[in-house]
Amino acid sequence: MRIAELSQRTGVPIPTIKFYLREHLLPPGELTSPNQAQYGETHVHRLRLVRALVEVGGLSISATREVLTRMRAATNTLHSIGKAQFAIADPVEPHEDEAWHDAVRRVDELVAERGWQVRDSNPARASLAEALAYLTRLGHGDLFPLLRHYASAAELLAVSEVDVVLSRENVDSMSETLVTMSVLGDAMMSALRMMAQESDATRRFEEP
Amino acid sequence: MRIAELSQRTGVPIPTIKFYLREHLLPPGELTSPNQAQYGETHVHRLRLVRALVEVGGLSISATREVLTRMRAATNTLHSIGKAQFAIADPVEPHEDEAWHDAVRRVDELVAERGWQVRDSNPARASLAEALAYLTRLGHGDLFPLLRHYASAAELLAVSEVDVVLSRENVDSMSETLVTMSVLGDAMMSALRMMAQESDATRRFEEP
Repeated sequence: MRIAELSQRTGVPIPTIKFYLREHLLPPGELTSPNQAQYGETHVHRLRLVRALVEVGGLSISATREVLTRMRAATNTLHSIGKAQFAIADPVEPHEDEAWHDAVRRVDELVAERGWQVRDSNPARASLAEALAYLTRLGHGDLFPLLRHYASAAELLAVSEVDVVLSRENVDSMSETLVTMSVLGDAMMSALRMMAQESDATRRFEEP
Repeated sequence: MRIAELSQRTGVPIPTIKFYLREHLLPPGELTSPNQAQYGETHVHRLRLVRALVEVGGLSISATREVLTRMRAATNTLHSIGKAQFAIADPVEPHEDEAWHDAVRRVDELVAERGWQVRDSNPARASLAEALAYLTRLGHGDLFPLLRHYASAAELLAVSEVDVVLSRENVDSMSETLVTMSVLGDAMMSALRMMAQESDATRRFEEP
């Protein structure tokens, strides 16, 4: 198909597709003349994946490129498959105040308490610490008890999530599923929490 | 305090603080001479809130401004308090293909099944539909059963979350807590899911 049809199928404007091509987020089409290229189903799929990462996940262009590169490089080890997922986490340059050091300690304690096996290289450790540090900095330290609820929920969800990833027949598919589930799962949880909060608050305000 | 101390206290570089001042994310300091302003504790707090929204939540400058404006405008009604939270959700311009229409139907069904009271104006409905539409588009329709697990988790968490919001003594504090909990809670859940997934996968790979 030509670029116009690729655009129509995916809803992505032609200038955006051209931008992704220039940024190497999308492999080039097959040239049929100096000014015309043909695209296939792999382009449709890749374009949708890029859109999910950029639009739903809010990933930067460079982070998206890194995720895609690591997905292609995935081999048959757990660590290699996980690496693409690690690239989703936006690395933070922490402000290393007291709140930060306290937060890092809380993360270590949580991991130990739960008996979780989490590598030091997992960037989620730093992301979690950063969020916890902001709770302290903003004077919402009384939200810390929620952390245990969130961890229990994450632990329960992980069982079903890992089931799905392991059900995939090859490494490429496992890696893509893990990335998709991370990005779309975050968006789903965020939306569902907002909806559940509204619902719960509405119910309580209505009660006599 | 002068801007240098404000920068030191918060870890936010001076040029960034000046940018936030220009963008009205931070109220001006009190001028003590034509070139010098004094800042107080409210500036420290506001600056930390802005950083949490921008750095942790990934909000754009205009979305951050909208959240802050709505927080200030909050009055003593549930809907008014919730409005600041609604501004966190990045409005999506959906590609209205079959996957999208199917996703919107799934969201309506979920809300009905759960007996949730969620306004049509809650932007989380569209965010959730968009994420579900991408599952279909990317051929991961077998992840749909996870939606029920996510919804159950969100429902359980909402009870504790709304408790904390309602424990706040005034509307300003409720509104800020709700916004902070949304943004930092999303970051915490995302990080915890990634950690729990790694832990669960590691355990299973290690088993004989």
